[in-house]
Amino acid sequence: MSGKLYGIGVGPGDPELITLKAARMIESAEVIAYPAPDPGESFARAIAAKHIAADTREIVIRIAMRAGHVPSEPYDLAAEAIAAELEEGRDVVVLCEGDPFFYGTFMYLHDRLCPRFGCEIVPGVSSLTAVAAAASRPLTRRTGTLNVFPATLDPAILKARLGESEAAAILKVGRHLPQLKELIADLGRLDEAVYVSHASLPQQKVVPLAELEADEAPYFSMILIAKVER
Amino acid sequence: MSGKLYGIGVGPGDPELITLKAARMIESAEVIAYPAPDPGESFARAIAAKHIAADTREIVIRIAMRAGHVPSEPYDLAAEAIAAELEEGRDVVVLCEGDPFFYGTFMYLHDRLCPRFGCEIVPGVSSLTAVAAAASRPLTRRTGTLNVFPATLDPAILKARLGESEAAAILKVGRHLPQLKELIADLGRLDEAVYVSHASLPQQKVVPLAELEADEAPYFSMILIAKVER
Repeated sequence: MSGKLYGIGVGPGDPELITLKAARMIESAEVIAYPAPDPGESFARAIAAKHIAADTREIVIRIAMRAGHVPSEPYDLAAEAIAAELEEGRDVVVLCEGDPFFYGTFMYLHDRLCPRFGCEIVPGVSSLTAVAAAASRPLTRRTGTLNVFPATLDPAILKARLGESEAAAILKVGRHLPQLKELIADLGRLDEAVYVSHASLPQQKVVPLAELEADEAPYFSMILIAKVER
Repeated sequence: MSGKLYGIGVGPGDPELITLKAARMIESAEVIAYPAPDPGESFARAIAAKHIAADTREIVIRIAMRAGHVPSEPYDLAAEAIAAELEEGRDVVVLCEGDPFFYGTFMYLHDRLCPRFGCEIVPGVSSLTAVAAAASRPLTRRTGTLNVFPATLDPAILKARLGESEAAAILKVGRHLPQLKELIADLGRLDEAVYVSHASLPQQKVVPLAELEADEAPYFSMILIAKVER
């Protein structure tokens, strides 16, 4: 009988924002897998470190990111290594930053291995709600709508979507920061916008977008736009 | 010195999907508060029950829901009771289903008490990611956009938004189920739609929307629309 593949959200960064279920499953895992930059340390593993037993076997998925391009080869190799474990009847627990299905890389394994093998997803606290918490801003009011998109979206489409959204979250701000700020100002919504990076981590930064003086932001930063009720 | 108000997400329903931080804070809380229907039991309290000490004082926010209308009086009363605790220097931990700021009722307390008192939000696993996990469907691909809206949105606007979204989540399906199904079929996206209720709970239900035969759905149900990659 084949093992099962678990995609497990470990939350946005604060190791305490991991769920009881994720902690339990990582603690009892025989094999874990996680993405890591090449070179560099895995953020997902760092979040979960406290729960990883010394004798757990670890599959590292080394991703050399180049200008936003995600190479498929590391996922092909990882899927092969994971499939070999599953075929021998061992479960594999994949550690995912935030939530596995919210702009995560787990989908690349999911595409390759499910439903060929049994798969289960354990949802985690996503960057979206962590950012709203950090900013102390309700994301959505009762009947409100929320638009989520990456900063890499075509600027014309981005502007149209922002114009129609009661609330919006723009992910992966990075080098798009100056043009985003201009675009949001053009729409007259600069006062509704807040910039957050490293939500839930010690170096967390929350700044009203209007006051942010920078040409670039970390890749893992977000702009939230939401009407402030007074 | 005043106490601090904590809005704490307890996750979508599975008591194991609470975070370590939420569990710790609830366990050590002197005073907790939570919404409950009138009459009926509190879902948020039920999720967190294992972590509530016997001598914790409890403030119940009784909400008599009538046809989608949220009365303000219970929140005025609860805010008063909570303010009295905070003024005497005691922290108050508010239990919130899912995430406090993702279509939650915590915002009504947040509006009334923050920033008058110190407030901190502990994000939780939202219904959005719990539903995607239940359906085993990635919410968003790398450069994709996600639209989130309640089923109560004006049907014409809803149709326009659905037409432009790579992925969409429609919350609070309830009695809107038949017209939503028709609208999604009109857009030619019925095959991309999946219906989920009670995500993460034992009675969880996941059905392709095309196969769902029902005139009504629970209030806490969702339709996810996302392209399936093959």
